[in-house]
Amino acid sequence: MKCLEINGKYRSYPIIIGKGILNNLQNLEKYDKILILSNDRIGKLYFDKVIQSIGREDVFVFFISDGEKYKNFNTVNEIYDYMVTKNFSRKSLIITLGGGVVCDIGGFVAGTYMRGIDFIQIPTSLLAQVDASIGGKTAVNHKSGKNLIGLFNQPILVLIDIEFLETLPKEEFFSGMGEVIKHSLILYGKDKSYFNFLRDNCEQLLKLDEEKLIEMIEKSCFVKKKIVEKDEFEENERVFLNLGHTYAHIIEKSFGYGLISHGEAVSKGIIFELAMSGVKKREIDKIRSLFHLFHLNCEPISFCGNSFIETAKCDKKNSFENINFILFDENMNLRKEAVGIEEILRVNESFCDRYIK
Amino acid sequence: MKCLEINGKYRSYPIIIGKGILNNLQNLEKYDKILILSNDRIGKLYFDKVIQSIGREDVFVFFISDGEKYKNFNTVNEIYDYMVTKNFSRKSLIITLGGGVVCDIGGFVAGTYMRGIDFIQIPTSLLAQVDASIGGKTAVNHKSGKNLIGLFNQPILVLIDIEFLETLPKEEFFSGMGEVIKHSLILYGKDKSYFNFLRDNCEQLLKLDEEKLIEMIEKSCFVKKKIVEKDEFEENERVFLNLGHTYAHIIEKSFGYGLISHGEAVSKGIIFELAMSGVKKREIDKIRSLFHLFHLNCEPISFCGNSFIETAKCDKKNSFENINFILFDENMNLRKEAVGIEEILRVNESFCDRYIK
Repeated sequence: MKCLEINGKYRSYPIIIGKGILNNLQNLEKYDKILILSNDRIGKLYFDKVIQSIGREDVFVFFISDGEKYKNFNTVNEIYDYMVTKNFSRKSLIITLGGGVVCDIGGFVAGTYMRGIDFIQIPTSLLAQVDASIGGKTAVNHKSGKNLIGLFNQPILVLIDIEFLETLPKEEFFSGMGEVIKHSLILYGKDKSYFNFLRDNCEQLLKLDEEKLIEMIEKSCFVKKKIVEKDEFEENERVFLNLGHTYAHIIEKSFGYGLISHGEAVSKGIIFELAMSGVKKREIDKIRSLFHLFHLNCEPISFCGNSFIETAKCDKKNSFENINFILFDENMNLRKEAVGIEEILRVNESFCDRYIK
Repeated sequence: MKCLEINGKYRSYPIIIGKGILNNLQNLEKYDKILILSNDRIGKLYFDKVIQSIGREDVFVFFISDGEKYKNFNTVNEIYDYMVTKNFSRKSLIITLGGGVVCDIGGFVAGTYMRGIDFIQIPTSLLAQVDASIGGKTAVNHKSGKNLIGLFNQPILVLIDIEFLETLPKEEFFSGMGEVIKHSLILYGKDKSYFNFLRDNCEQLLKLDEEKLIEMIEKSCFVKKKIVEKDEFEENERVFLNLGHTYAHIIEKSFGYGLISHGEAVSKGIIFELAMSGVKKREIDKIRSLFHLFHLNCEPISFCGNSFIETAKCDKKNSFENINFILFDENMNLRKEAVGIEEILRVNESFCDRYIK
């Protein structure tokens, strides 16, 4: 079992990583009521086990439908209604048990119900374990764009149990690897060891080897910890966590959530940004190979230019008339850059040529 | 012109109080877009003036319907939609121009749009000037109770211009005085000077005498400042600002918002809590007299016991099976107390007898 501490500006909290560690859900007596928020798939598999670990009977369970398209205000309002009906108070607790959708929406509800109540994240997908559950970003989708509504709200505890990964569909595991590889690329300019670790241990990781998996998740959480601690509210370097995401959100908005997994969309976005940065083909190929090892099709899709730009403009990462991307410099270190529309269109139309050069 | 600084845990910001002070809206160039959020009544009277003070042309205006019943998620979603359509970004600014509803909802939208953007409060009613605009409580009503959804979110500036009070309906001015008198009662146990100031200057205040009015608003803001600085997130003494509010929210929920003004509901709630505290009739009568000077009918209404309790339980100030009230001790200092249901029913049924004793 590993433990990291995230030292936020207003709150510090532990991330516990291990196998079969749900018994760490203790000392919850001070809460008058507990709500386990889950989705119908994960919830039914695991909520008995979670309730057992909590060790008290007055625990309520609310299932939301599984999928990004349910991360909206209808669902949020259903949860508020349920909590009000059951007399949830300021002294109640929410435990999220699920993937990114549950983590994001649970954090939002916890942050806004009666101006904020405590919550614990128990992420069950790899994506949520290395990303959504950590760092306090909560979100709800708006019909015009993903995660447009939300707030920064830190949990009191994150419990990452790799046992959940055993029932996780393989595609979702691969999707999580998209974010994991992104983490290794954030370090890449200064330190290639995490990138190499992923490449060298690919086989064990795909077999869910306990030791390697815990090591990987710890490394990814550590990348996020370091960045979030420096810049909790995304005013500076936290934007590097958006590597690949400008393009990924455009794909997800254009094709609908679910057709292409989030991690795969991010992998395409990273290749797009590598191309836009003018990184050499040899280097890009090395990175493509790692994505391929984890079954991620990272080849970008060429868009109709106008719809690409219009979709990009609705992303909350953008202001004024440029679109923000995360680019690589010659040493493979990252920088944020507001890229003009013409340049984006040029890369969109020709990036294949460009990175094959 | 007076200036107070609120030193929050995460952000400090000025409150500027004066007459004809809208020209203090400067240095807004760093924002890519500005939204003035107002209601149809106030907005039409003043938004030209506000736009002129901002001194730039690309300012957007969104009017919400006036009234507590519009402080709901439908309105919130309309504002989100409008902002997305107009490409508002993380670098945009919201200026609220209106009463409590506009302040509360504007602060909520600012706190949740793209995980938070800056906002300025320009409260136009006395109630909003001494209460809703200060302290960072933002809120949206839920069908089951007032202000059930919200978050703590501090503005970057509060501009209190007493010129707005000249077009404010008299009933709304009286309503604001309910909160002002509440502030004087929070100090009452230790210092009666604010209470005496209100009594001794009643006539000038009702005539909107500039000097007295600014002095009063400054004193009220100072009470709020001191409490909010000690306890921004309502974990301890900030609950004293809820004096009169448990009962007031029950009235408002039972009779609908608007039939009885908020300030009048609070005045009734204060008399209810004075009675519940067993304060002597002579003392209560002194306080009733001050409410009467400002045209507030502070006599509590006797409720049907069951509906009283059921309504109280939905209030977010309550947890477990007791209902929280703010009570007075023998020296007229305040304390929070979780009162059992039987005791509440007893006071509800007999408080008239009790405080006439």
